Amino acid sequence: MNPDGHLHEEKIDGEVVFEGRLLQVRRDRVRLPNGAESTREFVTHPGAVTMLALLDNGNLLLERQFRYPLGRVFLELPAGKIDAGETPMEAARRELLEETGYVAEDWQRLGVIHNCIGYSNEFIDIYLARRLRRVSGQQLDHNEFLEVVEMSPQELGAAIRKGEVTDAKTISGLYWLEKILA
Amino acid sequence: MNPDGHLHEEKIDGEVVFEGRLLQVRRDRVRLPNGAESTREFVTHPGAVTMLALLDNGNLLLERQFRYPLGRVFLELPAGKIDAGETPMEAARRELLEETGYVAEDWQRLGVIHNCIGYSNEFIDIYLARRLRRVSGQQLDHNEFLEVVEMSPQELGAAIRKGEVTDAKTISGLYWLEKILA
Repeated sequence: MNPDGHLHEEKIDGEVVFEGRLLQVRRDRVRLPNGAESTREFVTHPGAVTMLALLDNGNLLLERQFRYPLGRVFLELPAGKIDAGETPMEAARRELLEETGYVAEDWQRLGVIHNCIGYSNEFIDIYLARRLRRVSGQQLDHNEFLEVVEMSPQELGAAIRKGEVTDAKTISGLYWLEKILA
Repeated sequence: MNPDGHLHEEKIDGEVVFEGRLLQVRRDRVRLPNGAESTREFVTHPGAVTMLALLDNGNLLLERQFRYPLGRVFLELPAGKIDAGETPMEAARRELLEETGYVAEDWQRLGVIHNCIGYSNEFIDIYLARRLRRVSGQQLDHNEFLEVVEMSPQELGAAIRKGEVTDAKTISGLYWLEKILA
């Protein structure tokens, strides 16, 4: 017996209602706990990774990237979508190298976050990467633009409290890092 | 002169490409920093609020709610969308009362997070609510189901580190609360 049965929503059927170049949206018909029918629309996402890349000097690698939906540059942890056929660990190594030019010898998965539980099935695995070495420049797609910056965890915390960093994966990642370093 | 001009993406034109019952998706044509054209698809969202509702006994009000896109119950901070014509502060008072039956005499806006910067313009304002008083039961829509639970910030932190709490707004909210309480 499901202890969450009084909260559970059961799929009846569903379909893809929007297939864009980037986004796919599903609409499912569901049975609510009270027996009524409703619909749920959500973005389907392959999952993503984000990296707490901690340099030997104690600084984190961060990125400045223009985020079109919000119309401004965000300071955020390196991150990226998991490609088809790729493990999260492989995605983390690939994205770190492509976006920053760094490789890490020491990788540790800290946990997972769900950033948009109301209308997306996205998950973001959080990795701690240490023993970093810069092996190349950025290896970005020709239509990808981002800047790499270094910042200490303390400086990042101060930037969050000043409202200069508002990206939830970055704040959640720093929460994890502070507990690990404590 | 825009210091982020080398990262900026400029809208050329755009349209709504999906209008669902819950979700709306836009697709814009954009000019990239290198002059190339690309497209950006994203969910348009009215914004949301989340509440760190701190009881006189030191516990937080949390909710257990089934989140269909991920097919399970999440433990999370009370939260909700801002209705048309409503300020974030009004939405926070309304959602707290509807979902938990509590009102608060002391409200403080701590900051804002952006939980899905890759493909949504959603923002979530974070409020600290104190001097709480229970005035009624939940006042949920008849098709809304959620349980209210109490937990200390320390217990919530332990649940995050055990991987039992993965919701990014809840982790980000606790990050803010720990800094305020410290």
